[in-house]
Amino acid sequence: MTTSKILFNINGQLQSVGDQAVNLVDDRGLAYGHGLFETTFLTQSTVPLLDRHLSRLIQDSQLMGISVANDDIAHYLEVFLETLSAQAITSGIVKIILTAGSGGRGYAMPAKIIPTLIYSYTPMPENVAHQREQGIDIRLCRHLLGTGSSLAGVKHLNRLDQVMARSEWSHNRYQEGLMFTEAGDVIEATSANIFVKTQDGKWLTPDLDQSGVSGVMRGLLIEEVFPACDIKVSIKAINRDTLLGAQQVLLCNSIRGILRVNSVYSVDDQLLKTLPLDQQSLMLSEKLIELYPQYQ
Amino acid sequence: MTTSKILFNINGQLQSVGDQAVNLVDDRGLAYGHGLFETTFLTQSTVPLLDRHLSRLIQDSQLMGISVANDDIAHYLEVFLETLSAQAITSGIVKIILTAGSGGRGYAMPAKIIPTLIYSYTPMPENVAHQREQGIDIRLCRHLLGTGSSLAGVKHLNRLDQVMARSEWSHNRYQEGLMFTEAGDVIEATSANIFVKTQDGKWLTPDLDQSGVSGVMRGLLIEEVFPACDIKVSIKAINRDTLLGAQQVLLCNSIRGILRVNSVYSVDDQLLKTLPLDQQSLMLSEKLIELYPQYQ
Repeated sequence: MTTSKILFNINGQLQSVGDQAVNLVDDRGLAYGHGLFETTFLTQSTVPLLDRHLSRLIQDSQLMGISVANDDIAHYLEVFLETLSAQAITSGIVKIILTAGSGGRGYAMPAKIIPTLIYSYTPMPENVAHQREQGIDIRLCRHLLGTGSSLAGVKHLNRLDQVMARSEWSHNRYQEGLMFTEAGDVIEATSANIFVKTQDGKWLTPDLDQSGVSGVMRGLLIEEVFPACDIKVSIKAINRDTLLGAQQVLLCNSIRGILRVNSVYSVDDQLLKTLPLDQQSLMLSEKLIELYPQYQ
Repeated sequence: MTTSKILFNINGQLQSVGDQAVNLVDDRGLAYGHGLFETTFLTQSTVPLLDRHLSRLIQDSQLMGISVANDDIAHYLEVFLETLSAQAITSGIVKIILTAGSGGRGYAMPAKIIPTLIYSYTPMPENVAHQREQGIDIRLCRHLLGTGSSLAGVKHLNRLDQVMARSEWSHNRYQEGLMFTEAGDVIEATSANIFVKTQDGKWLTPDLDQSGVSGVMRGLLIEEVFPACDIKVSIKAINRDTLLGAQQVLLCNSIRGILRVNSVYSVDDQLLKTLPLDQQSLMLSEKLIELYPQYQ
C-alpha cells in the first residue's frame, strides 16, 4: 500500500491514480521547491538508465527529509509506462517529480511528510537525432549560477537559475547555453553537463560540489564510457580561458546522450570558437551507443 | 476578463474560481519554482502593507518574464478576502503565489505565459503577540545561503535554502535561525530580515544584492520607521563578529512586525549572547505600532 500521493500527467492531461485527491495547491514542491525530479529517456517502452535515476532520486531525497519507498517509485513508474504503452506511446520523455507533499506552516517541515509523486510524459523533441549526429552550437549565458549551497549537485526543484539563463535566447540558433559562477568557472549547460578536452589533450569535467546538477549521463560517462575508451577524465574546475582554449567540448544528458559542440558564441552573439571534429569525441559517442544502443 | 488561472485555498481546502480547471501538475511554479510569493498579514479583514506587497510582486514578476495585471491580482485578492469574510475569517495569513503557469518544454519559457495566481489562507500562529512583547531566542544555522544570483533579494519560489536551514531544529526553544553566506556574513533569518545595533551604537541591516529576500517590513523600517524615530540605519555587510558584538538584534517581517532578540545560540545549542532591552529598540517597536496599529 502506498503512502504517497500519485499523479499521472500525459501531455498536460491530468489523470489521478486510484482515488487520490488531485490537489497540489499547498504542496511544498510548489511553495518552496521542496522536492526533486528526474528527466528520463523512454525508448521502446523502457528507460535505459533507470537504476541510476532511481538511486540518485532516493539518495538525494533523504538530504531533503523526504522518505519514500524505492518500490513505490518503481512500481508506479511501471504502472505509468503501462498506461503509456496502452496508448501506443513507447518513446519520449518521462519526468518523475518527488516532493515533500502538502503543508507544514512556513518553512518548517510537517511532522509527517506524505510525499507527492508525479509522473509526466512529453514527446521527444524532433531534433535530437540530428543533434547527436551533427553536433550543436552553443552560447555563453549572462545569468550566473549561485555557489556554496549544501544542495549543490542535487537535481532539486529550485531551478530558477536555469530558467533565467535559458530565457536569454529564444531563437533556434543555439541548442544550449553555458552557465558560469561569479568566479568565472563554467559549471554546466542549462540542461546538460559539460566535458572539455583541454589544449594539452586532457579531458576535464567541472567539480559540482559548489554548484550545478550532477547528471546521470555525466556519471555514466565518468564511470563507464571514458574508462571503456581508455581515456582519462578528471573532475576539476574549468575557467573561461581553459574553455575557450579547448580542443573539444561535449555536452551530455540522459535524454540527448552525448552532443559534440561545433561552435561557441558569446553573450552578445560573437563567434568565440569553432571546434573541429576529434577522434576521441567520436570514440566516446560510439562507445556510448555500443554500451547503450538506445542512444543511436 | 482575467488572463490568469486563479485558485483559492483555505486551510488546504481547494476552491477553484469560476470554471478554471484545477491543474497545477505541469505548472512552472512546481517544476522549477518559476514564480513568486507574498505572505501578507490579514487583520480586521484588511492587509496593512498591501501596496508594498503588490508593487514588489509586480516589479519582481517582470524580472522573471511573468506579466500580470496589477488589477487582476488586487481584484482577486478582494474576492478572496470577501470569501474569507463570508466564513467569518477576518485575521490570519494570506499568501499570494504568482507563477509562470503551465508548460513550455524544459526550461525555455512558453511563447505565451498564462500566469497562475493562488490565494491561500492559514490562521495566525498563536504565539505572535507574545513574541512581539517578550522577544525571541534564536540560533545560528549551519546551512549556508548561496550568493551571486541575479535574483538575490527577490521573494521567488526557490526557497530550499530556507527549508534546509529551518529543518535544523524542530523544538520550540528557538523562534528563528540566522543564515550566513560562505564568506561568513549574516544575511537574514529563515523568514525574517535582520537589523543590528553595533557595539558602537550604529544600526545596520545587510545588503541583499548577493543573497536573501528584501522583505516588505524591512523596506518599511528603513523608509518610514527608522526616519520617524530619527535613528540612522545603514545598509552594510554584517559579519559574525559584528553580530556577536552587537548591542541589539531585531528581526522583522510583515506578519510578525518587529521582534527583539533576547538571546543567540550557536549551531550546537551553546548560548553565545544575551541582549538586554534597549531604549531605541523599544522606540522602533512603538513607532511601528503608532504608524500601523495592526502590529500591536
